[in-house]
Amino acid sequence: MVASALGALRGLRGLRAWGAQPLSPCLRRCLAKYTVADALRHRDNTDTAILRGWVKSLRIQKKYTFLDINDGSSNEKLQVFLPTEKTPDNLSWGSSIEVTGHLSTTPRGQIELIADHITVVGDCKVTDGYPFNSKQNHPPEYLRQYLHMRTRTKYISSIFRIRDAATRAVYQYFNSLDYINIHTPILTSNDCEGAGEMFRVEPENAKTLLKMYTEGVPAEQAYFNTKAFLTVSGQLHLEAAAHGLSRVYTFGPTFRAENSKSRMHLSEFYMIEAETAFVSDLKDVIVVIEDLVKFVTNSVLSSCEGDVLSLRGENNAIDWLDKPFIKITYDEAVDLILKNKHKFKIPLEIGQALRKEHELLLVELMNGTPTFVINWPKEIKPFYMRSLREDDTKVAALDLLAPITGEIAGGSLRENNYENLKKKLPSPDLNWYLELRKFGSTPTGGFGLGFERYLQLICNVTNIKDTIPFPRWPHNCSM
Amino acid sequence: MVASALGALRGLRGLRAWGAQPLSPCLRRCLAKYTVADALRHRDNTDTAILRGWVKSLRIQKKYTFLDINDGSSNEKLQVFLPTEKTPDNLSWGSSIEVTGHLSTTPRGQIELIADHITVVGDCKVTDGYPFNSKQNHPPEYLRQYLHMRTRTKYISSIFRIRDAATRAVYQYFNSLDYINIHTPILTSNDCEGAGEMFRVEPENAKTLLKMYTEGVPAEQAYFNTKAFLTVSGQLHLEAAAHGLSRVYTFGPTFRAENSKSRMHLSEFYMIEAETAFVSDLKDVIVVIEDLVKFVTNSVLSSCEGDVLSLRGENNAIDWLDKPFIKITYDEAVDLILKNKHKFKIPLEIGQALRKEHELLLVELMNGTPTFVINWPKEIKPFYMRSLREDDTKVAALDLLAPITGEIAGGSLRENNYENLKKKLPSPDLNWYLELRKFGSTPTGGFGLGFERYLQLICNVTNIKDTIPFPRWPHNCSM
Repeated sequence: MVASALGALRGLRGLRAWGAQPLSPCLRRCLAKYTVADALRHRDNTDTAILRGWVKSLRIQKKYTFLDINDGSSNEKLQVFLPTEKTPDNLSWGSSIEVTGHLSTTPRGQIELIADHITVVGDCKVTDGYPFNSKQNHPPEYLRQYLHMRTRTKYISSIFRIRDAATRAVYQYFNSLDYINIHTPILTSNDCEGAGEMFRVEPENAKTLLKMYTEGVPAEQAYFNTKAFLTVSGQLHLEAAAHGLSRVYTFGPTFRAENSKSRMHLSEFYMIEAETAFVSDLKDVIVVIEDLVKFVTNSVLSSCEGDVLSLRGENNAIDWLDKPFIKITYDEAVDLILKNKHKFKIPLEIGQALRKEHELLLVELMNGTPTFVINWPKEIKPFYMRSLREDDTKVAALDLLAPITGEIAGGSLRENNYENLKKKLPSPDLNWYLELRKFGSTPTGGFGLGFERYLQLICNVTNIKDTIPFPRWPHNCSM
Repeated sequence: MVASALGALRGLRGLRAWGAQPLSPCLRRCLAKYTVADALRHRDNTDTAILRGWVKSLRIQKKYTFLDINDGSSNEKLQVFLPTEKTPDNLSWGSSIEVTGHLSTTPRGQIELIADHITVVGDCKVTDGYPFNSKQNHPPEYLRQYLHMRTRTKYISSIFRIRDAATRAVYQYFNSLDYINIHTPILTSNDCEGAGEMFRVEPENAKTLLKMYTEGVPAEQAYFNTKAFLTVSGQLHLEAAAHGLSRVYTFGPTFRAENSKSRMHLSEFYMIEAETAFVSDLKDVIVVIEDLVKFVTNSVLSSCEGDVLSLRGENNAIDWLDKPFIKITYDEAVDLILKNKHKFKIPLEIGQALRKEHELLLVELMNGTPTFVINWPKEIKPFYMRSLREDDTKVAALDLLAPITGEIAGGSLRENNYENLKKKLPSPDLNWYLELRKFGSTPTGGFGLGFERYLQLICNVTNIKDTIPFPRWPHNCSM
């Protein structure tokens, strides 16, 4: 068995120390180039270190030049110094460099690089239109105008490292519970939510459409012989997969053609969705959501502590992490909100959805602990939800509310009685979905969690557009 | 620290044994329901076991009823038996059931479940239009007509378990090398490959478009104020992210509006793409691709051995796994192919792309070992590739060819000289891409690997449509 497989058997943490394994000479050479994170962990400190990165600060003094470099691998910078006589003329803030030298630990315990040699790989003429400035902390709205460059900033790179860690943790979590990842389709001929806020997809090339024409099909639908949309949720497809694989999940992009420029909405965003067969108690859905959120958060904290600290500040701990989440019914939530009427502007209509303001108030009343609101009025929830046995006007549904964002997840038990579902089916296009209830059917339950909203919560980021590398929203699709 | 975080520290393999950790009582209850995979590992064999799944075979004899059940967690079935007098009347092949009983090991070492009780959860009236038949092994083309039910079959569920294991391994691999996952956008206003085979995206709702109208913008582009397409590759966006994070990758859906119904093409397919900063040797790209393919394959073998065996057969080992992949130049490849002229039908044009037939012949000449073909003629490759120093007519590009599929990956060093790139830039829409070369630029190299083609290779599956849960291809977008 080769080194890679041994790596797998040693588990994910083991892989971090992979460099110690018998790698191919070529890959060894490749890895021998330190990252800044490696250097700060002071790996193999007696060797010559070759580091590459961008200059984040620069002080040229008479005898010595001091610079901080970063390569995106850590939220910390590595201090480098070399004799000023050896400093290249075109070394400047923002330039990319290669440094050769030796790592050393200062008496204060700080790791620094004593450079023998610096090469400027790409210079940075800041006066020639570079949008960033060494003296300024640019606000997020400003950075958003330069999507192709904002990963160079401390603020955005911290968020993306956290996004990376959270992404990995999602796969780890579901694997630990034997869930199987199913890539549900992006293109679909069904509308899961029936909200009419879908994007339609057609080939750009008119000749292709013409060539593919089939009699009786509208010309613009010639490619698929049906209207095709971008998915709004993978749930219905997951339910199909669960009727054979039992525990399934998906984690990918979903789309809404809404006209909302709020700090909470994107036209393209990521959802974590899971569906479990043989589940007929909403508690079994709730427990997985709560555990997922806590597991992912603990994983993020263990691998990106510095990033989380720098985004949240020292006095802003995630204090709900060791507490059980709160569970209340819709009716209880409404009562609580009405008792605090004086605290909000938009009136609450009983039997209707909660507004963002109400959601945030409710979480505040719970001292910021994430709160499940369960058992919702049937009328305001989609066709596929199952009614409560004890109250036919309610469905076994949940919303999870959290600070900053309000709703971050929604879930339910699904109607799995063939006759009941048949009555509610919104379109014959969904006959396949009905048919799942006909042959070896099982009750299923599941949920969807908005990944960017989760990141807002963890990173303490007000605007959702800063949690995704290339945000798309009304009137904005740059790059 | 809560149990979940401890789980993370123990690593991925440790998580498999998570049940032993102090879980919340509710999640413990949830997990206490065995999967068939758990039962076959004979976990906690003294407890009462509750299993849920689908009946895969059924023999009702005078005294005892024997059945095999499966729940998608394993490619093996669990044998169950109970007294025939206790057998429910509506128990049939295909129905979903809950079984309570005790696990026991037969003298031959086989694990079986001695049932106390069986409940039929959902019956299966096979004569009422159920497309599958207990006596038949349905061919893949037949299963493809029932996308919503085919995960119930042994063949398809094996492929999807392998897809799940491979997916996880991709994230593990890149994390082990400190690559950061970047969700590159699905919606884009750029065309990376310039091949004109893109899908265009617009809101379905005409009222939304009308409301969002901006003067001077074509009415159908009102949503984004620009034409928006589905991505064909995340590469250009990854290059932007690499200019700050150094090592980045993406793994997600990409789209081609081609009119090809071949066994090798999908309209929606998954690509693994990676980009590395400070790379100026094609070998550094090659070594990562080769190592990735071997790592993922070893991971799949270690977690899905039974599935791989059942798909490939006993005598069809993956014999390239311990061999170095072959590296030859385009010119050498052309020579080799021409020397074997008698073995192919379509003539090879020197200086042109290889046809599928030539690719497969070349791999056959290499005894089935995956083969990198490097240094391609400039004319047939995209604008962003860097020319070879020693030969200006060639670019530092690679294709990786493999059995069954031919090309499974492509990569290159990118042109990072501002002036050179400016001359070749196909559209001013890509000025942001050019600008990456202006401020703190670095040489980068990267690749894209077709995930479904990789799965075809590992699973020995001829038609790519069977490697993705919900395939989309010309004239087909069901569900």
